[in-house]
Amino acid sequence: MINTLVEKIKKTNAPIEVGLDPMLSYVPEHITKAAYEQFGETLEGAAEAIWQFNKGIVDAIYDLIPAVKPQIAMYEQFGVEGLKVYQKTVDYCHDKGLLVIGDVKRGDIGSTSAAYATAHLGNVQVGSKTFSSFNTDFATVNPYFGTDGVKPFVDVCREEKKGLFILVKTSNPSSGEFQDRLVDGRPLYEYVGEKVAEWGADCMGDSYSYIGAVVGATYPEQGKVLRKIMPKSFILVPGYGAQGGQGKDLVHFFNEDGLGAIVNSSRGIIAAYKQDKYKDQGITPENYADASRMAVEDMIADIAGALANK
Amino acid sequence: MINTLVEKIKKTNAPIEVGLDPMLSYVPEHITKAAYEQFGETLEGAAEAIWQFNKGIVDAIYDLIPAVKPQIAMYEQFGVEGLKVYQKTVDYCHDKGLLVIGDVKRGDIGSTSAAYATAHLGNVQVGSKTFSSFNTDFATVNPYFGTDGVKPFVDVCREEKKGLFILVKTSNPSSGEFQDRLVDGRPLYEYVGEKVAEWGADCMGDSYSYIGAVVGATYPEQGKVLRKIMPKSFILVPGYGAQGGQGKDLVHFFNEDGLGAIVNSSRGIIAAYKQDKYKDQGITPENYADASRMAVEDMIADIAGALANK
Repeated sequence: MINTLVEKIKKTNAPIEVGLDPMLSYVPEHITKAAYEQFGETLEGAAEAIWQFNKGIVDAIYDLIPAVKPQIAMYEQFGVEGLKVYQKTVDYCHDKGLLVIGDVKRGDIGSTSAAYATAHLGNVQVGSKTFSSFNTDFATVNPYFGTDGVKPFVDVCREEKKGLFILVKTSNPSSGEFQDRLVDGRPLYEYVGEKVAEWGADCMGDSYSYIGAVVGATYPEQGKVLRKIMPKSFILVPGYGAQGGQGKDLVHFFNEDGLGAIVNSSRGIIAAYKQDKYKDQGITPENYADASRMAVEDMIADIAGALANK
Repeated sequence: MINTLVEKIKKTNAPIEVGLDPMLSYVPEHITKAAYEQFGETLEGAAEAIWQFNKGIVDAIYDLIPAVKPQIAMYEQFGVEGLKVYQKTVDYCHDKGLLVIGDVKRGDIGSTSAAYATAHLGNVQVGSKTFSSFNTDFATVNPYFGTDGVKPFVDVCREEKKGLFILVKTSNPSSGEFQDRLVDGRPLYEYVGEKVAEWGADCMGDSYSYIGAVVGATYPEQGKVLRKIMPKSFILVPGYGAQGGQGKDLVHFFNEDGLGAIVNSSRGIIAAYKQDKYKDQGITPENYADASRMAVEDMIADIAGALANK
């Protein structure tokens, strides 16, 4: 799957992914109104609104990008109805030719991680039949449990040719509280990065490993160091746009081949219609998806410009 | 909710919880057969088998214990159908008067953690209405993101009078890989433990905080130290039984008041019918739930004996 990701990035010239992390407050009123008219102000109604919102965005941008990254928490908050829409969104994005990174940040002891790996990347056996449940192409994983909590995910990736992005240095303000603690004079995240490289060494695609890392755009200096520690790992870079990261901060996450990183933007794309910048270009809530397309194009240009000036 | 947990532990004299972590391989054949006859070898069929298996166990043990801890991964592997059964199990346990600890081990950047907190402990707003989604009483949380990833969970706990168990030192063999790294001569998990105590200080019940910790039974020495670092935090202790922990290892997880810890057993209870020990007492797959009751009684006696000899 990492080979497919590389191929799609080259084809679109867009090392970016769109975070499909819908909040009800992002959904334009004409969509929620129609959904509530059909299903009432219920969890089903909320789920329908989110589905229609997602579909509009995917239809508007699918040809520009290699992948999307739905954040499962945003669906999970609506319970089973929300998770139905998560699954529907994954399937729809696949139909549109997009790769899907399930942003699930799961991780547990071995036997439990195996169940999560099955849920999101693998197949579950029921009697004589097998089924894939959420069926995403990549998943994000939390490393706190160490090797035996990560290995079941790696095993499923090897078997199913899927991929992981393992949390190394996260984009949030307090990520340093534990991740930056100095161990023999080096921050903990460097040790996690070394483990990611080690776990990934046995699962190589053509030029990159199936096993990647998450490093926040908000920490460019750390990204520079981690890029070297994990030369064969793709880095998923969240924190661009709304969280404060900019194109110029991102160049060090890439390798000399111009690859090795994929930058995520969520709110900056899916709620672009709320920005004055796009309102000034004639965007209204009714054509919110056009703003998402414009924001993707702007992001591609910002990153391409930064990489050209590297 | 921590006050209710303390009260129920005193009433049952059982500082234990049963992990409802069903694998299809644990479910006796008469149950899977009936489920597949009704729904086919499908995800619905698997979910039905797990539901009937759970119900049998809960009916057999609910009067002996204060709480159950369903591991959501085991349900998630069957996709939306599995998660319906997770929710049904939570609701059924509530009807039987049990507290429910959602073993979800979620954690992310602030806005995403807020969505997870809403999903598992809080209420979601849909138009003018509010709904609770999975509605568990406690949830387990991963601390890798630091304070701003944990705070949204703490805030919901304060508002809804619910509780957390935050991973500090996990029960698995490789937990030391990152958790034991020495920072200024002390293992990282001690710093995490200090943060748990700090986060919990503002959310006190009568004698314990709403904010507890997870420390594996397989690490009794570490448990002894962490007990002192977090004197007001309840410790959820996994790893008893099948993972190797025994009653005598557990005494240091408790405070002098005989409280402060709740010990989990999953496989050792729900798949007890497979053990020779219970087969010798006339257990067959048909009366699997009776073995679960016997195993709960044995576990209560083991821990009570160990605490009496402390």
